[in-house]
Amino acid sequence: MEEMMVVLDEEELLGCCGSTKFAKEMASASPFASLNQAVSAARHIWFNLVDVNGWLDAFSAHPQIGQSPSSQWSKAEQSTALATANESSSQELSDWNNRYRLRFGFIFIICASGRMAAEILAELKKRYTNRPIIEFEIAAQEQMKITELRLAKLFSAKAKASSATFQ
Amino acid sequence: MEEMMVVLDEEELLGCCGSTKFAKEMASASPFASLNQAVSAARHIWFNLVDVNGWLDAFSAHPQIGQSPSSQWSKAEQSTALATANESSSQELSDWNNRYRLRFGFIFIICASGRMAAEILAELKKRYTNRPIIEFEIAAQEQMKITELRLAKLFSAKAKASSATFQ
Repeated sequence: MEEMMVVLDEEELLGCCGSTKFAKEMASASPFASLNQAVSAARHIWFNLVDVNGWLDAFSAHPQIGQSPSSQWSKAEQSTALATANESSSQELSDWNNRYRLRFGFIFIICASGRMAAEILAELKKRYTNRPIIEFEIAAQEQMKITELRLAKLFSAKAKASSATFQ
Repeated sequence: MEEMMVVLDEEELLGCCGSTKFAKEMASASPFASLNQAVSAARHIWFNLVDVNGWLDAFSAHPQIGQSPSSQWSKAEQSTALATANESSSQELSDWNNRYRLRFGFIFIICASGRMAAEILAELKKRYTNRPIIEFEIAAQEQMKITELRLAKLFSAKAKASSATFQ
């Protein structure tokens, strides 16, 4: 089987991570021979080349956890959380999200995939006590997990489309 | 000798550190019985309460190292650097400052007091290789050193003024 090169453009990459610097650098590094190669490039770019303003840009591109997500990806990632929340836990999550944003200046970022509402709330309360710079780095690590999941979906969709073309 | 309480207002505190959050929290914590007490409060507020946007605000309140400083404090702090710079080292410092700002998204912050131009340039080049999040925290530590020096000057000026009043 010959190696497939996957091309990712800036717009697709912005959907994985809302920092323009990230999307531009990744698009320059594209095409990728494998998902692993794309993830390695993404990690290098995110942690070494994107500056703190770029991190803040990416954070602000997300819907708040527990709010009705506008993108299909956010909706899928938060489906467990949304299914396990009731009215009172939704309210508590919303209150704590507000407290978090007031304290840190950006929204609470968590890779929500497969996590229940109660788990997310407990994590938010725990992280709320962190120093701002520590929390900033944790949020960036969570953002990277989200980016990796989205890159994997993008790769799998492209691979299917490509194998359909070559049949 | 009775204990003197030193009152610091928001405007004076903004001159020590250009984050509004910092100045407001410090003004609330004022008056202070000693410089040590003020510095402890300042460290707590800066590292635990001021968020990453507040850090960026404080950084952007500084003149670039090597550029003619507008405030008297910056001028005094950079006096050794300015006295030891020649035309070529000034140019090199300016070039590296631009590279630094492009990489990190904020200006190079260093407690310049007593440091020669060549030392500052060497430090800038060394710090340029750091990851953005690491450099962000180092810059915040340098900002705190600058704030401490300025608080000490403010305290000493106020103590003099106060002892003059009570003579």
